[in-house]
Amino acid sequence: MKTPKISEAVIRRLPVYLRYLQHLRDLNITTVSSHELGQNLDMNPAQIRKDLAYFGEFGRKGIGYDVQYLIEKIKQILKLDRRLNVALVGAGNLGTALSNYNRYTNEKLKIVAIFDSFEEKIGTQVGTLEVLPIELLPKMVKELDIKMGIITVPATEAQKVADQMVDAGIKGILNFAPVILKVPLDIPVRNADVTTELESLAYYVD
Amino acid sequence: MKTPKISEAVIRRLPVYLRYLQHLRDLNITTVSSHELGQNLDMNPAQIRKDLAYFGEFGRKGIGYDVQYLIEKIKQILKLDRRLNVALVGAGNLGTALSNYNRYTNEKLKIVAIFDSFEEKIGTQVGTLEVLPIELLPKMVKELDIKMGIITVPATEAQKVADQMVDAGIKGILNFAPVILKVPLDIPVRNADVTTELESLAYYVD
Repeated sequence: MKTPKISEAVIRRLPVYLRYLQHLRDLNITTVSSHELGQNLDMNPAQIRKDLAYFGEFGRKGIGYDVQYLIEKIKQILKLDRRLNVALVGAGNLGTALSNYNRYTNEKLKIVAIFDSFEEKIGTQVGTLEVLPIELLPKMVKELDIKMGIITVPATEAQKVADQMVDAGIKGILNFAPVILKVPLDIPVRNADVTTELESLAYYVD
Repeated sequence: MKTPKISEAVIRRLPVYLRYLQHLRDLNITTVSSHELGQNLDMNPAQIRKDLAYFGEFGRKGIGYDVQYLIEKIKQILKLDRRLNVALVGAGNLGTALSNYNRYTNEKLKIVAIFDSFEEKIGTQVGTLEVLPIELLPKMVKELDIKMGIITVPATEAQKVADQMVDAGIKGILNFAPVILKVPLDIPVRNADVTTELESLAYYVD
């Protein structure tokens, strides 16, 4: 059966389910109902059932979902059952933190190369990786079959880095610089800007 | 004039405008049209004009917006013209990076205290701040008039930290742990989970 086209909203919720299901598995919990999922994720159980039913019938009435089976299915849907190599550009504090953080959170989605354009960064170690000059990006993307890029350079450098990533053949970008990147339409970009989040949160704080 | 209730979508876009306007100011650019803003932020100029007109008439036909004036107005609307103190809990790599990052990006929204529950972290320095035991959170929130909290602890600790923040009187939370937090309805929470972003991005990469 061909999987139908999945909305971006669903694709954004699946990793949230996945994280919670993995948490349940770590606690040796083997089944979970949509009601329990909803309570713990602060979401509507009907929405959760609808999201998951999209991909076939995973749950059983009165019993709920098999945690391990659902983990595998969501990983399949998100194509996380394959290895995906990631390049990070910008070996400052944030880049270093993300690289260290990544080592523990996902065994398939791996930062395999770190780049910077500042001479004093090049050759330094971030975890097990040596920071490489940005000029090596195209070569490494090919050699290591890198598909995704993370940008943690200053705002003024981000567009240039995005262009270099696209030229090198990277297929998706997670951007931490506080600018909107211009990339071809077929290259998805996610923006994660901490200060922007804090600033919009500030509005609600009296 | 009383400001009308502003939608969350608008509140989320204003910091994006602000960041770009500050970038223009740094380049000594004094006026900008909604068309130029739209092109550079990859947004519809009509949407931008509508968002900004919400707060009064800032722009002038054929001339555009005065960059400095608009920066001040947006800061006023987001209430960023006041100082807002922030506490960060979780002095790991991510917490350290965010704290260092924050020092350069916003002079009013400041991380003023860092907490951890691990003994080996307590007393260490993160930039100019000494990591404090989490037990001091209530005391410091009062002493330093802290309004917002950032959570960078592991997923299993995050709900406990959120409870401690709410009890201490914190009014808004930026959460980096990959869990959905349960907090009272009047406490806004923003979730920033790097791995979740990467995973949903992975879906689009062939």
